[in-house]
Amino acid sequence: MVRARPFAVTSVDAMVEGVHFRLDWASPADVGHRALAAALSDLAAMGADPGEAYVALAVPERFGDDAVLELARGMGALAERTGTTIAGGDLVRAPVLMVSVTVVGWAESEDALVGRGGARAGDLVGVTGTLGGAAAAMAALERGEDPSGAGAYLRPEPRLAEGRALAAVGVSAMIDLSDGVAGDAAHVGRRSGACLRIDLELLPCAPGASVEQAAAGGEDFELLACVPPAAVEHVRGLTWIGEVVDGPPGAAFSRAGAAVDLRGYDHFR
Amino acid sequence: MVRARPFAVTSVDAMVEGVHFRLDWASPADVGHRALAAALSDLAAMGADPGEAYVALAVPERFGDDAVLELARGMGALAERTGTTIAGGDLVRAPVLMVSVTVVGWAESEDALVGRGGARAGDLVGVTGTLGGAAAAMAALERGEDPSGAGAYLRPEPRLAEGRALAAVGVSAMIDLSDGVAGDAAHVGRRSGACLRIDLELLPCAPGASVEQAAAGGEDFELLACVPPAAVEHVRGLTWIGEVVDGPPGAAFSRAGAAVDLRGYDHFR
Repeated sequence: MVRARPFAVTSVDAMVEGVHFRLDWASPADVGHRALAAALSDLAAMGADPGEAYVALAVPERFGDDAVLELARGMGALAERTGTTIAGGDLVRAPVLMVSVTVVGWAESEDALVGRGGARAGDLVGVTGTLGGAAAAMAALERGEDPSGAGAYLRPEPRLAEGRALAAVGVSAMIDLSDGVAGDAAHVGRRSGACLRIDLELLPCAPGASVEQAAAGGEDFELLACVPPAAVEHVRGLTWIGEVVDGPPGAAFSRAGAAVDLRGYDHFR
Repeated sequence: MVRARPFAVTSVDAMVEGVHFRLDWASPADVGHRALAAALSDLAAMGADPGEAYVALAVPERFGDDAVLELARGMGALAERTGTTIAGGDLVRAPVLMVSVTVVGWAESEDALVGRGGARAGDLVGVTGTLGGAAAAMAALERGEDPSGAGAYLRPEPRLAEGRALAAVGVSAMIDLSDGVAGDAAHVGRRSGACLRIDLELLPCAPGASVEQAAAGGEDFELLACVPPAAVEHVRGLTWIGEVVDGPPGAAFSRAGAAVDLRGYDHFR
Protein backbone atom coordinates (compact mmCIF):
# COMPACT_ATOMS: atom_id res chain seq x y z
CA MET A 1 0.00 0.00 0.00
CA VAL A 2 1.27 3.42 -0.94
CA ARG A 3 0.32 6.77 0.59
CA ALA A 4 -0.45 8.83 -2.46
CA ARG A 5 0.68 12.29 -3.47
CA PRO A 6 -1.85 14.42 -5.38
CA PHE A 7 -1.05 13.37 -8.96
CA ALA A 8 0.09 10.05 -10.33
CA VAL A 9 1.51 9.32 -13.77
CA THR A 10 2.25 5.82 -14.92
CA SER A 11 4.37 4.30 -17.64
CA VAL A 12 4.59 0.75 -18.94
CA ASP A 13 7.51 -0.75 -20.80
CA ALA A 14 7.85 -4.33 -21.97
CA MET A 15 11.01 -5.98 -23.31
CA VAL A 16 11.19 -9.36 -24.96
CA GLU A 17 14.22 -11.60 -25.52
CA GLY A 18 15.11 -11.80 -29.20
CA VAL A 19 13.13 -8.62 -29.95
CA HIS A 20 14.52 -5.97 -27.58
CA PHE A 21 17.62 -7.71 -26.29
CA ARG A 22 19.72 -10.81 -26.83
CA LEU A 23 21.09 -12.75 -23.89
CA ASP A 24 24.38 -13.35 -25.70
CA TRP A 25 24.87 -9.54 -25.69
CA ALA A 26 23.20 -8.46 -22.50
CA SER A 27 23.84 -9.91 -19.05
CA PRO A 28 20.81 -10.60 -16.84
CA ALA A 29 21.77 -7.49 -14.84
CA ASP A 30 21.83 -5.43 -18.06
CA VAL A 31 18.32 -6.67 -18.89
CA GLY A 32 17.03 -5.70 -15.45
CA HIS A 33 18.66 -2.30 -15.61
CA ARG A 34 17.44 -1.62 -19.13
CA ALA A 35 13.82 -2.61 -18.53
CA LEU A 36 13.52 -0.28 -15.54
CA ALA A 37 15.49 2.48 -17.30
CA ALA A 38 13.11 2.45 -20.27
CA ALA A 39 10.08 2.79 -18.00
CA LEU A 40 11.70 5.52 -15.87
CA SER A 41 12.64 7.39 -19.04
CA ASP A 42 8.94 7.98 -19.71
CA LEU A 43 8.55 9.50 -16.25
CA ALA A 44 11.60 11.67 -16.89
CA ALA A 45 9.88 13.05 -19.99
CA MET A 46 6.91 14.08 -17.86
CA GLY A 47 9.07 15.74 -15.21
CA ALA A 48 7.71 13.36 -12.58
CA ASP A 49 9.42 11.99 -9.49
CA PRO A 50 9.78 8.21 -9.66
CA GLY A 51 7.79 6.35 -7.03
CA GLU A 52 7.07 2.66 -7.30
CA ALA A 53 7.84 0.02 -9.91
CA TYR A 54 5.83 -3.17 -10.47
CA VAL A 55 7.56 -5.89 -12.43
CA ALA A 56 6.14 -8.81 -14.39
CA LEU A 57 8.91 -11.29 -15.13
CA ALA A 58 8.28 -14.19 -17.50
CA VAL A 59 11.17 -16.62 -17.28
CA PRO A 60 12.14 -19.69 -19.32
CA GLU A 61 13.45 -22.70 -17.41
CA ARG A 62 16.90 -22.32 -18.98
CA PHE A 63 17.14 -18.89 -17.30
CA GLY A 64 18.00 -20.19 -13.84
CA ASP A 65 17.43 -18.83 -10.35
CA ASP A 66 20.89 -17.23 -10.28
CA ALA A 67 20.10 -15.33 -13.47
CA VAL A 68 16.76 -14.16 -12.04
CA LEU A 69 18.57 -12.86 -8.96
CA GLU A 70 21.19 -11.14 -11.10
CA LEU A 71 18.44 -9.50 -13.16
CA ALA A 72 16.75 -8.34 -9.95
CA ARG A 73 20.06 -6.94 -8.66
CA GLY A 74 20.66 -5.00 -11.88
CA MET A 75 17.18 -3.54 -11.65
CA GLY A 76 17.49 -2.96 -7.92
CA ALA A 77 20.72 -0.98 -8.25
CA LEU A 78 19.11 1.46 -10.69
CA ALA A 79 15.98 1.61 -8.53
CA GLU A 80 18.00 2.53 -5.45
CA ARG A 81 20.03 5.15 -7.29
CA THR A 82 16.90 6.82 -8.71
CA GLY A 83 14.76 6.62 -5.56
CA THR A 84 12.40 4.05 -7.05
CA THR A 85 10.79 1.38 -4.85
CA ILE A 86 10.25 -2.01 -6.47
CA ALA A 87 6.93 -2.58 -4.77
CA GLY A 88 5.47 -5.68 -6.35
CA GLY A 89 5.35 -8.00 -9.27
CA ASP A 90 4.55 -11.34 -10.75
CA LEU A 91 6.87 -14.18 -11.71
CA VAL A 92 5.69 -16.65 -14.35
CA ARG A 93 7.07 -19.21 -16.78
CA ALA A 94 7.43 -18.44 -20.49
CA PRO A 95 9.34 -19.81 -23.48
CA VAL A 96 11.41 -16.61 -23.74
CA LEU A 97 12.46 -14.01 -21.18
CA MET A 98 10.08 -11.06 -20.95
CA VAL A 99 10.24 -8.16 -18.53
CA SER A 100 7.36 -5.73 -18.20
CA VAL A 101 7.84 -2.77 -15.87
CA THR A 102 5.07 -0.43 -14.77
CA VAL A 103 6.36 2.64 -12.95
CA VAL A 104 4.30 5.18 -11.07
CA GLY A 105 5.57 8.72 -10.74
CA TRP A 106 4.17 11.41 -8.51
CA ALA A 107 3.78 15.16 -8.64
CA GLU A 108 2.44 17.74 -6.22
CA SER A 109 0.49 19.63 -8.88
CA GLU A 110 -0.79 19.23 -12.40
CA ASP A 111 1.34 22.19 -13.55
CA ALA A 112 4.51 20.37 -12.53
CA LEU A 113 3.93 17.75 -15.21
CA VAL A 114 4.71 18.02 -18.92
CA GLY A 115 2.76 16.25 -21.66
CA ARG A 116 3.36 15.61 -25.34
CA GLY A 117 0.64 17.84 -26.73
CA GLY A 118 1.74 21.35 -25.76
CA ALA A 119 4.20 22.29 -28.53
CA ARG A 120 3.38 25.61 -30.24
CA ALA A 121 4.73 27.38 -33.31
CA GLY A 122 7.77 29.40 -32.31
CA ASP A 123 9.08 26.89 -29.76
CA LEU A 124 12.63 25.70 -30.18
CA VAL A 125 13.25 21.93 -30.23
CA GLY A 126 16.20 20.56 -28.26
CA VAL A 127 17.57 17.22 -27.11
CA THR A 128 19.67 16.07 -24.17
CA GLY A 129 22.92 14.15 -24.62
CA THR A 130 23.95 12.50 -27.87
CA LEU A 131 21.93 10.35 -30.25
CA GLY A 132 22.53 7.15 -32.16
CA GLY A 133 24.82 5.60 -29.54
CA ALA A 134 22.48 2.69 -28.88
CA ALA A 135 21.97 2.00 -32.59
CA ALA A 136 25.73 2.17 -33.25
CA ALA A 137 26.40 -0.19 -30.33
CA MET A 138 23.76 -2.63 -31.55
CA ALA A 139 25.29 -2.57 -35.04
CA ALA A 140 28.72 -3.26 -33.53
CA LEU A 141 27.33 -6.17 -31.51
CA GLU A 142 25.73 -7.55 -34.66
CA ARG A 143 29.15 -7.44 -36.35
CA GLY A 144 30.46 -9.51 -33.43
CA GLU A 145 32.52 -6.71 -31.88
CA ASP A 146 33.34 -6.32 -28.22
CA PRO A 147 30.19 -5.62 -26.17
CA SER A 148 32.23 -3.76 -23.52
CA GLY A 149 31.77 -0.58 -25.56
CA ALA A 150 28.01 -1.05 -25.67
CA GLY A 151 27.17 0.69 -22.40
CA ALA A 152 24.91 3.27 -24.03
CA TYR A 153 22.78 0.49 -25.39
CA LEU A 154 22.94 -1.98 -22.51
CA ARG A 155 22.81 0.48 -19.60
CA PRO A 156 20.90 3.59 -20.68
CA GLU A 157 20.56 6.24 -18.00
CA PRO A 158 17.06 7.71 -17.57
CA ARG A 159 17.25 11.52 -17.66
CA LEU A 160 15.24 12.08 -14.50
CA ALA A 161 17.08 15.14 -13.19
CA GLU A 162 17.16 16.74 -16.64
CA GLY A 163 13.43 16.08 -17.09
CA ARG A 164 12.54 17.66 -13.76
CA ALA A 165 14.72 20.69 -14.52
CA LEU A 166 13.17 21.15 -17.97
CA ALA A 167 9.66 20.79 -16.53
CA ALA A 168 10.50 23.41 -13.92
CA VAL A 169 11.50 26.04 -16.49
CA GLY A 170 8.29 25.59 -18.45
CA VAL A 171 8.97 23.52 -21.57
CA SER A 172 5.76 23.06 -23.57
CA ALA A 173 6.12 19.38 -24.54
CA MET A 174 8.58 16.60 -23.88
CA ILE A 175 9.14 12.98 -24.94
CA ASP A 176 11.85 10.42 -24.38
CA LEU A 177 13.59 9.17 -27.49
CA SER A 178 12.78 5.49 -27.23
CA ASP A 179 11.86 5.10 -30.91
CA GLY A 180 14.27 7.74 -32.21
CA VAL A 181 13.81 11.37 -33.26
CA ALA A 182 12.09 10.30 -36.50
CA GLY A 183 9.16 8.67 -34.76
CA ASP A 184 9.08 10.58 -31.48
CA ALA A 185 9.24 14.11 -32.94
CA ALA A 186 6.36 13.18 -35.25
CA HIS A 187 4.44 11.88 -32.26
CA VAL A 188 4.81 15.19 -30.38
CA GLY A 189 3.82 17.09 -33.53
CA ARG A 190 0.67 15.05 -34.06
CA ARG A 191 -0.34 15.34 -30.41
CA SER A 192 0.29 19.07 -30.45
CA GLY A 193 -1.35 19.83 -33.81
CA ALA A 194 1.90 21.44 -35.01
CA CYS A 195 4.94 20.54 -37.08
CA LEU A 196 8.36 19.91 -35.57
CA ARG A 197 10.87 20.98 -38.23
CA ILE A 198 14.14 19.16 -37.56
CA ASP A 199 17.48 19.84 -39.26
CA LEU A 200 19.32 16.52 -39.32
CA GLU A 201 22.69 18.30 -39.57
CA LEU A 202 22.12 19.67 -36.08
CA LEU A 203 21.63 16.26 -34.42
CA PRO A 204 24.31 15.62 -31.78
CA CYS A 205 25.59 12.28 -33.07
CA ALA A 206 27.18 9.95 -30.53
CA PRO A 207 30.77 8.90 -31.27
CA GLY A 208 30.72 6.37 -34.09
CA ALA A 209 27.03 6.95 -34.88
CA SER A 210 25.79 8.00 -38.31
CA VAL A 211 23.14 10.68 -38.84
CA GLU A 212 20.71 7.91 -39.81
CA GLN A 213 21.39 6.09 -36.54
CA ALA A 214 20.96 9.35 -34.62
CA ALA A 215 17.67 10.10 -36.37
CA ALA A 216 16.02 6.73 -36.56
CA GLY A 217 17.94 4.36 -34.29
CA GLY A 218 15.99 4.75 -31.11
CA GLU A 219 16.61 3.36 -27.64
CA ASP A 220 18.88 6.26 -26.66
CA PHE A 221 16.40 7.34 -23.97
CA GLU A 222 17.47 10.97 -24.26
CA LEU A 223 14.80 13.67 -23.95
CA LEU A 224 13.38 15.85 -26.71
CA ALA A 225 11.84 19.09 -25.43
CA CYS A 226 9.92 21.92 -27.08
CA VAL A 227 10.84 25.21 -25.43
CA PRO A 228 8.81 28.42 -25.69
CA PRO A 229 10.93 31.51 -26.54
CA ALA A 230 10.50 32.96 -23.04
CA ALA A 231 11.96 29.83 -21.45
CA VAL A 232 14.94 29.36 -23.77
CA GLU A 233 17.31 31.46 -21.71
CA HIS A 234 16.60 29.36 -18.60
CA VAL A 235 17.40 26.06 -20.28
CA ARG A 236 20.74 24.31 -19.80
CA GLY A 237 22.14 21.26 -21.52
CA LEU A 238 20.04 20.97 -24.66
CA THR A 239 21.32 20.84 -28.23
CA TRP A 240 18.93 22.76 -30.50
CA ILE A 241 17.88 20.66 -33.48
CA GLY A 242 14.93 22.57 -34.92
CA GLU A 243 11.79 24.54 -34.26
CA VAL A 244 8.03 24.17 -34.11
CA VAL A 245 6.11 25.70 -37.03
CA ASP A 246 2.53 25.85 -38.23
CA GLY A 247 2.02 23.05 -40.71
CA PRO A 248 0.70 19.52 -41.07
CA PRO A 249 0.77 17.94 -37.59
CA GLY A 250 3.84 15.74 -37.29
CA ALA A 251 7.49 16.30 -38.07
CA ALA A 252 9.45 17.39 -41.15
CA PHE A 253 13.12 16.58 -41.60
CA SER A 254 15.70 18.29 -43.75
CA ARG A 255 19.40 17.90 -44.49
CA ALA A 256 21.46 20.57 -46.23
CA GLY A 257 18.21 22.34 -47.02
CA ALA A 258 16.57 19.34 -48.73
CA ALA A 259 13.61 17.46 -47.29
CA VAL A 260 14.28 13.93 -46.02
CA ASP A 261 11.48 11.39 -45.73
CA LEU A 262 11.72 9.52 -42.42
CA ARG A 263 8.18 8.15 -42.39
CA GLY A 264 8.00 4.48 -41.66
CA TYR A 265 10.35 4.83 -38.69
CA ASP A 266 7.36 5.22 -36.41
CA HIS A 267 7.28 1.48 -35.87
CA PHE A 268 6.17 -0.56 -32.95
CA ARG A 269 8.74 -2.93 -31.65
CA MET B 1 -2.33 11.64 -15.29
CA VAL B 2 -4.53 10.53 -12.44
CA ARG B 3 -5.80 12.60 -9.52
CA ALA B 4 -4.96 10.41 -6.59
CA ARG B 5 -7.04 9.31 -3.63
CA PRO B 6 -5.21 8.89 -0.31
CA PHE B 7 -4.13 5.25 -0.57
CA ALA B 8 -3.09 3.24 -3.59
CA VAL B 9 -2.71 -0.53 -3.85
CA THR B 10 -1.35 -2.19 -6.94
CA SER B 11 -1.43 -5.67 -8.35
CA VAL B 12 0.43 -7.24 -11.25
CA ASP B 13 -0.65 -10.31 -13.15
CA ALA B 14 1.08 -11.81 -16.18
CA MET B 15 -0.31 -14.53 -18.42
CA VAL B 16 1.66 -16.36 -21.09
CA GLU B 17 0.37 -18.39 -24.04
CA GLY B 18 1.06 -22.07 -23.57
CA VAL B 19 1.56 -21.62 -19.83
CA HIS B 20 -1.62 -19.89 -18.59
CA PHE B 21 -3.86 -20.26 -21.62
CA ARG B 22 -4.03 -21.90 -25.02
CA LEU B 23 -5.35 -20.03 -28.04
CA ASP B 24 -7.14 -23.14 -29.31
CA TRP B 25 -9.22 -23.03 -26.10
CA ALA B 26 -9.51 -19.35 -25.36
CA SER B 27 -10.63 -16.66 -27.80
CA PRO B 28 -8.63 -13.42 -27.89
CA ALA B 29 -11.53 -11.78 -25.99
CA ASP B 30 -11.31 -14.52 -23.34
CA VAL B 31 -7.59 -13.82 -22.92
CA GLY B 32 -8.20 -10.10 -22.51
CA HIS B 33 -10.99 -10.67 -20.01
CA ARG B 34 -9.04 -13.22 -18.04
CA ALA B 35 -5.83 -11.19 -17.74
CA LEU B 36 -7.70 -8.19 -16.35
CA ALA B 37 -9.91 -10.38 -14.14
CA ALA B 38 -6.87 -12.00 -12.52
CA ALA B 39 -5.34 -8.62 -11.69
CA LEU B 40 -8.65 -7.19 -10.42
CA SER B 41 -9.12 -10.27 -8.28
CA ASP B 42 -6.10 -9.21 -6.21
CA LEU B 43 -7.70 -5.81 -5.62
CA ALA B 44 -10.95 -7.53 -4.65
CA ALA B 45 -9.04 -9.42 -1.96
CA MET B 46 -7.82 -6.13 -0.50
CA GLY B 47 -11.28 -4.57 -0.53
CA ALA B 48 -10.03 -1.82 -2.83
CA ASP B 49 -11.95 0.08 -5.50
CA PRO B 50 -10.50 -0.56 -8.96
CA GLY B 51 -8.98 2.50 -10.58
CA GLU B 52 -6.65 2.26 -13.55
CA ALA B 53 -5.18 -0.65 -15.48
CA TYR B 54 -1.92 -0.54 -17.45
CA VAL B 55 -1.42 -3.28 -19.98
CA ALA B 56 1.74 -4.66 -21.56
CA LEU B 57 0.84 -6.75 -24.58
CA ALA B 58 3.49 -8.86 -26.30
CA VAL B 59 2.12 -10.13 -29.57
CA PRO B 60 3.42 -12.64 -32.13
CA GLU B 61 2.98 -11.75 -35.82
CA ARG B 62 0.55 -14.63 -36.33
CA PHE B 63 -1.77 -12.94 -33.79
CA GLY B 64 -3.15 -10.34 -36.19
CA ASP B 65 -4.53 -6.85 -35.69
CA ASP B 66 -8.11 -8.16 -35.54
CA ALA B 67 -7.16 -10.50 -32.73
CA VAL B 68 -5.45 -7.65 -30.84
CA LEU B 69 -8.63 -5.58 -31.16
CA GLU B 70 -10.76 -8.49 -30.03
CA LEU B 71 -8.50 -9.00 -27.01
CA ALA B 72 -8.79 -5.29 -26.20
CA ARG B 73 -12.57 -5.45 -26.50
CA GLY B 74 -12.77 -8.43 -24.14
CA MET B 75 -10.65 -6.58 -21.63
CA GLY B 76 -12.51 -3.32 -22.20
CA ALA B 77 -15.92 -4.87 -21.54
CA LEU B 78 -14.80 -6.14 -18.13
CA ALA B 79 -13.07 -2.82 -17.42
CA GLU B 80 -16.24 -0.87 -18.15
CA ARG B 81 -18.42 -3.17 -16.09
CA THR B 82 -16.07 -2.94 -13.07
CA GLY B 83 -15.36 0.79 -13.29
CA THR B 84 -11.75 0.27 -14.31
CA THR B 85 -10.03 2.72 -16.68
CA ILE B 86 -7.50 1.21 -19.08
CA ALA B 87 -5.12 4.13 -18.83
CA GLY B 88 -2.00 3.09 -20.67
CA GLY B 89 0.17 0.33 -21.91
CA ASP B 90 2.85 -0.94 -24.20
CA LEU B 91 2.55 -3.07 -27.34
CA VAL B 92 5.57 -5.10 -28.41
CA ARG B 93 6.46 -8.09 -30.56
CA ALA B 94 7.16 -11.50 -29.03
CA PRO B 95 7.28 -15.13 -30.14
CA VAL B 96 4.27 -15.99 -27.94
CA LEU B 97 1.34 -13.95 -26.70
CA MET B 98 1.85 -12.46 -23.26
CA VAL B 99 -0.45 -10.11 -21.37
CA SER B 100 0.74 -8.34 -18.25
CA VAL B 101 -1.80 -6.21 -16.39
CA THR B 102 -0.95 -3.81 -13.59
CA VAL B 103 -4.02 -2.49 -11.80
CA VAL B 104 -4.14 0.32 -9.28
CA GLY B 105 -6.87 0.37 -6.67
CA TRP B 106 -7.70 3.20 -4.35
CA ALA B 107 -9.00 3.57 -0.84
CA GLU B 108 -9.91 6.55 1.33
CA SER B 109 -8.20 5.18 4.42
CA GLU B 110 -5.73 2.55 5.47
CA ASP B 111 -8.38 0.87 7.62
CA ALA B 112 -10.55 0.22 4.57
CA LEU B 113 -7.93 -2.17 3.16
CA VAL B 114 -7.39 -5.81 4.11
CA GLY B 115 -4.02 -7.57 3.95
CA ARG B 116 -2.92 -11.18 4.14
CA GLY B 117 -1.20 -11.06 7.51
CA GLY B 118 -4.03 -10.37 9.96
CA ALA B 119 -5.48 -13.84 10.62
CA ARG B 120 -5.69 -14.73 14.32
CA ALA B 121 -6.50 -17.92 16.23
CA GLY B 122 -10.26 -18.17 16.64
CA ASP B 123 -11.12 -16.65 13.24
CA LEU B 124 -13.36 -18.68 10.97
CA VAL B 125 -12.17 -19.31 7.40
CA GLY B 126 -14.66 -18.94 4.56
CA VAL B 127 -14.70 -18.80 0.78
CA THR B 128 -16.97 -17.18 -1.81
CA GLY B 129 -18.60 -19.16 -4.61
CA THR B 130 -17.57 -22.66 -5.58
CA LEU B 131 -14.10 -24.10 -6.11
CA GLY B 132 -12.49 -26.35 -8.70
CA GLY B 133 -14.60 -25.14 -11.61
CA ALA B 134 -11.61 -23.77 -13.50
CA ALA B 135 -9.58 -26.95 -12.95
CA ALA B 136 -12.49 -29.14 -14.01
CA ALA B 137 -13.02 -27.02 -17.13
CA MET B 138 -9.32 -27.20 -18.00
CA ALA B 139 -9.38 -30.98 -17.60
CA ALA B 140 -12.42 -31.18 -19.90
CA LEU B 141 -10.68 -29.01 -22.49
CA GLU B 142 -7.63 -31.26 -22.29
CA ARG B 143 -9.89 -34.24 -23.02
CA GLY B 144 -11.08 -32.38 -26.13
CA GLU B 145 -14.57 -31.65 -24.81
CA ASP B 146 -16.72 -28.68 -25.73
CA PRO B 147 -15.19 -25.42 -24.46
CA SER B 148 -18.65 -23.79 -24.26
CA GLY B 149 -18.94 -25.17 -20.73
CA ALA B 150 -15.62 -23.64 -19.72
CA GLY B 151 -16.88 -20.21 -18.74
CA ALA B 152 -15.60 -20.46 -15.15
CA TYR B 153 -12.13 -20.99 -16.49
CA LEU B 154 -12.17 -18.66 -19.49
CA ARG B 155 -14.21 -15.80 -18.01
CA PRO B 156 -13.64 -15.68 -14.26
CA GLU B 157 -15.49 -12.90 -12.49
CA PRO B 158 -13.43 -10.86 -10.01
CA ARG B 159 -15.24 -10.70 -6.65
CA LEU B 160 -14.97 -6.94 -6.24
CA ALA B 161 -18.32 -6.28 -4.55
CA GLU B 162 -17.86 -9.28 -2.25
CA GLY B 163 -14.34 -8.11 -1.35
CA ARG B 164 -15.50 -4.61 -0.48
CA ALA B 165 -18.38 -5.98 1.62
CA LEU B 166 -16.08 -8.35 3.50
CA ALA B 167 -13.55 -5.58 4.12
CA ALA B 168 -16.33 -3.37 5.44
CA VAL B 169 -17.44 -5.88 8.10
CA GLY B 170 -13.89 -6.28 9.38
CA VAL B 171 -12.41 -9.55 8.11
CA SER B 172 -8.88 -10.00 9.42
CA ALA B 173 -7.17 -11.33 6.28
CA MET B 174 -8.18 -12.05 2.71
CA ILE B 175 -6.65 -13.56 -0.44
CA ASP B 176 -7.92 -14.45 -3.88
CA LEU B 177 -7.68 -18.11 -4.80
CA SER B 178 -5.47 -17.83 -7.85
CA ASP B 179 -3.23 -20.77 -6.88
CA GLY B 180 -5.94 -22.74 -5.07
CA VAL B 181 -6.81 -23.18 -1.41
CA ALA B 182 -3.79 -25.43 -0.89
CA GLY B 183 -1.26 -22.74 -1.71
CA ASP B 184 -3.21 -19.61 -0.84
CA ALA B 185 -4.40 -20.67 2.63
CA ALA B 186 -0.80 -21.58 3.48
CA HIS B 187 0.29 -18.17 2.25
CA VAL B 188 -2.16 -16.36 4.56
CA GLY B 189 -1.08 -18.61 7.45
CA ARG B 190 2.61 -17.89 6.94
CA ARG B 191 2.02 -14.15 6.61
CA SER B 192 -0.17 -14.14 9.72
CA GLY B 193 2.03 -16.38 11.88
CA ALA B 194 -0.92 -18.71 12.43
CA CYS B 195 -2.28 -21.98 11.05
CA LEU B 196 -5.35 -22.16 8.83
CA ARG B 197 -6.94 -25.54 9.56
CA ILE B 198 -9.05 -26.50 6.54
CA ASP B 199 -11.51 -29.41 6.37
CA LEU B 200 -11.49 -30.56 2.73
CA GLU B 201 -14.96 -32.10 3.13
CA LEU B 202 -16.36 -28.60 3.65
CA LEU B 203 -15.02 -27.21 0.35
CA PRO B 204 -17.88 -26.04 -1.91
CA CYS B 205 -16.97 -28.04 -5.01
CA ALA B 206 -18.13 -26.67 -8.36
CA PRO B 207 -20.35 -29.00 -10.43
CA GLY B 208 -18.15 -31.70 -11.91
CA ALA B 209 -15.12 -30.75 -9.82
CA SER B 210 -13.35 -33.19 -7.52
CA VAL B 211 -12.20 -32.30 -4.00
CA GLU B 212 -8.61 -32.36 -5.32
CA GLN B 213 -9.51 -29.88 -8.04
CA ALA B 214 -11.31 -27.69 -5.50
CA ALA B 215 -8.32 -27.77 -3.14
CA ALA B 216 -5.39 -27.50 -5.50
CA GLY B 217 -6.70 -26.51 -8.91
CA GLY B 218 -6.40 -22.78 -8.67
CA GLU B 219 -7.54 -20.06 -11.07
CA ASP B 220 -11.04 -19.92 -9.58
CA PHE B 221 -10.45 -16.34 -8.41
CA GLU B 222 -12.83 -16.74 -5.50
CA LEU B 223 -11.95 -15.07 -2.18
CA LEU B 224 -10.79 -16.74 1.01
CA ALA B 225 -11.42 -14.63 4.13
CA CYS B 226 -10.54 -15.04 7.81
CA VAL B 227 -13.35 -13.69 9.94
CA PRO B 228 -13.03 -12.77 13.63
CA PRO B 229 -15.85 -14.18 15.82
CA ALA B 230 -17.39 -10.74 16.34
CA ALA B 231 -17.74 -10.21 12.58
CA VAL B 232 -19.16 -13.63 11.69
CA GLU B 233 -22.79 -12.62 12.13
CA HIS B 234 -22.34 -9.71 9.69
CA VAL B 235 -20.94 -11.85 6.90
CA ARG B 236 -23.07 -13.01 3.99
CA GLY B 237 -22.25 -15.41 1.19
CA LEU B 238 -19.28 -17.35 2.55
CA THR B 239 -19.00 -21.11 2.90
CA TRP B 240 -17.10 -21.95 6.09
CA ILE B 241 -14.24 -24.34 5.40
CA GLY B 242 -12.15 -24.18 8.57
CA GLU B 243 -10.69 -22.08 11.33
CA VAL B 244 -7.50 -20.34 12.36
CA VAL B 245 -5.58 -22.00 15.19
CA ASP B 246 -2.28 -21.52 16.97
CA GLY B 247 0.29 -23.74 15.30
CA PRO B 248 3.08 -23.80 12.75
CA PRO B 249 2.48 -20.84 10.41
CA GLY B 250 0.84 -22.10 7.23
CA ALA B 251 -2.13 -24.33 6.58
CA ALA B 252 -3.13 -27.85 7.64
CA PHE B 253 -5.64 -29.92 5.69
CA SER B 254 -7.75 -32.81 6.82
CA ARG B 255 -10.35 -35.11 5.30
CA ALA B 256 -12.63 -37.34 7.36
CA GLY B 257 -10.45 -36.48 10.33
CA ALA B 258 -7.16 -37.57 8.72
CA ALA B 259 -4.40 -35.15 7.78
CA VAL B 260 -3.80 -34.60 4.04
CA ASP B 261 -0.47 -33.33 2.75
CA LEU B 262 -1.03 -30.65 0.10
CA ARG B 263 2.49 -29.21 0.19
CA GLY B 264 4.00 -28.79 -3.22
CA TYR B 265 0.87 -27.13 -4.58
CA ASP B 266 2.34 -23.74 -3.71
CA HIS B 267 3.91 -23.55 -7.14
CA PHE B 268 4.75 -20.62 -9.33
CA ARG B 269 3.24 -20.74 -12.75
